[in-house]
Amino acid sequence: MSPKIAIQGFEGSFHQIAARHYFGTDITFATCATFSEVVRQVTSEEVDCGLMAIENSIAGSILPNYNLLQQANLRVTGEVYLRIRQHLLMLPGQSLTDIREVHSHPMALLQCRAFLREHLDWRLVETEDTALSAKNIREQHLTGTAAVAGSLAAELFDMDIVAEDIHSDDQNYTRFLVVERAEKAKPVANANKASLYFHTDHQQGSLAKVLVRIADRGINLSKLQSYPRPGYTWQYYFHADLEFDDAQQLEQVLEDIAPVTDSVRVLGVYRKGETY
Amino acid sequence: MSPKIAIQGFEGSFHQIAARHYFGTDITFATCATFSEVVRQVTSEEVDCGLMAIENSIAGSILPNYNLLQQANLRVTGEVYLRIRQHLLMLPGQSLTDIREVHSHPMALLQCRAFLREHLDWRLVETEDTALSAKNIREQHLTGTAAVAGSLAAELFDMDIVAEDIHSDDQNYTRFLVVERAEKAKPVANANKASLYFHTDHQQGSLAKVLVRIADRGINLSKLQSYPRPGYTWQYYFHADLEFDDAQQLEQVLEDIAPVTDSVRVLGVYRKGETY
Repeated sequence: MSPKIAIQGFEGSFHQIAARHYFGTDITFATCATFSEVVRQVTSEEVDCGLMAIENSIAGSILPNYNLLQQANLRVTGEVYLRIRQHLLMLPGQSLTDIREVHSHPMALLQCRAFLREHLDWRLVETEDTALSAKNIREQHLTGTAAVAGSLAAELFDMDIVAEDIHSDDQNYTRFLVVERAEKAKPVANANKASLYFHTDHQQGSLAKVLVRIADRGINLSKLQSYPRPGYTWQYYFHADLEFDDAQQLEQVLEDIAPVTDSVRVLGVYRKGETY
Repeated sequence: MSPKIAIQGFEGSFHQIAARHYFGTDITFATCATFSEVVRQVTSEEVDCGLMAIENSIAGSILPNYNLLQQANLRVTGEVYLRIRQHLLMLPGQSLTDIREVHSHPMALLQCRAFLREHLDWRLVETEDTALSAKNIREQHLTGTAAVAGSLAAELFDMDIVAEDIHSDDQNYTRFLVVERAEKAKPVANANKASLYFHTDHQQGSLAKVLVRIADRGINLSKLQSYPRPGYTWQYYFHADLEFDDAQQLEQVLEDIAPVTDSVRVLGVYRKGETY
């Protein structure tokens, strides 16, 4: 049976594009309205895995998702990076000159502002989702209307791409984590990256001590993200991504940092992701 | 002439409460729809200072504001902490038993969910702003309608507080920064805190080196926030808040970290803020 993957967003979304790159196309999807719902479906085993965006190269970390991961009993078993490419989609046979309205999520419209500004006669309509805008155009057979969305929406809803790569920033990447229920997750072979979180005793220099021990083992800290420690005002958790060469290095560093942290939890040990 | 302060949000908002605690009541306000507009008004000298929220003890950092601060030529000259207290406001003479509708910003309604859940017959109406909801009730003389808002909205719009402190989490604090145009800002006397940002050469252990030098000078790192370095995919800036005893300590540490950072900019040197 094809694995079932919970993703945030609608059919044809960037989450679904990322999932197809990571898992291949022989999968089925549960589309979830919120990230909490992704976590709930993975936890309750309604799906095999979940895929959730954790940060974007321009907008930064999705902080609430760090909290979600911390509170849930999930394991990170992989990651995938996707370049966000926005296209202009219309019903087959329609062309740029037919456009009167452009529908999409406000963030997508913003990402394409330079292109859209060249066409001031187009009415911009903010919607809930990029792919959903394309689906609506298809279902309601809206002529004269284009959607800003990814390539998968064009494929799924049989739409034409009338303008390709209309986003302003060519270096817009999103990082997605693959999450599984902790009890079910199997160890990942040839792992070279780990995500963990910890807090320190909040004494002067306590974070420096942790980072020095990580560096001393020859491990690269690819990301350090602080976020509020629930119930402790103005104290922070740190979420760290470590890149290493072999599993022994990671085991050693976890031993090394134990005395200088108040609690360390490993969210997952996995293969560094590919970029698509 | 009273100083003029640009704040994000509407009259009666938590930004205005924080500004009155920091500057006293002999001030005038420019209310701005967005944080960008606050920065623009300070930069163009339409106002004397701006006040902007930078982080919340529960929700965490307001990441876009770190970017705004970095891109603008502003100086941080102070900070203030405010406990977020939500009340239920009605027209004078009205009472709890009259309520049919409650208006407020979705976040405020969420913060009061336990209290509101005890009154399932109240219709909850999501609005743009807490204080604006109170103002609307006053201007349209809406009986049977309450607003969730702060105490200043009650004072400004002559409303009664019919239920006090209805928020669920008693430890909900927001930190605000005071910003001025860099060329205009005067050095702050008896400063004991600094905000700076830097990036490193992204070599292994580079962040550890910076933090060790900070700790070696006896300086407390009260906050370390990473965010994307514009134009450099998956590289990060670090925004650091340092607490020190005297200005010399800060000067020394800036010299110490210069060789191990690629660029350091001091956003401001100021007095550690009070909590109200």
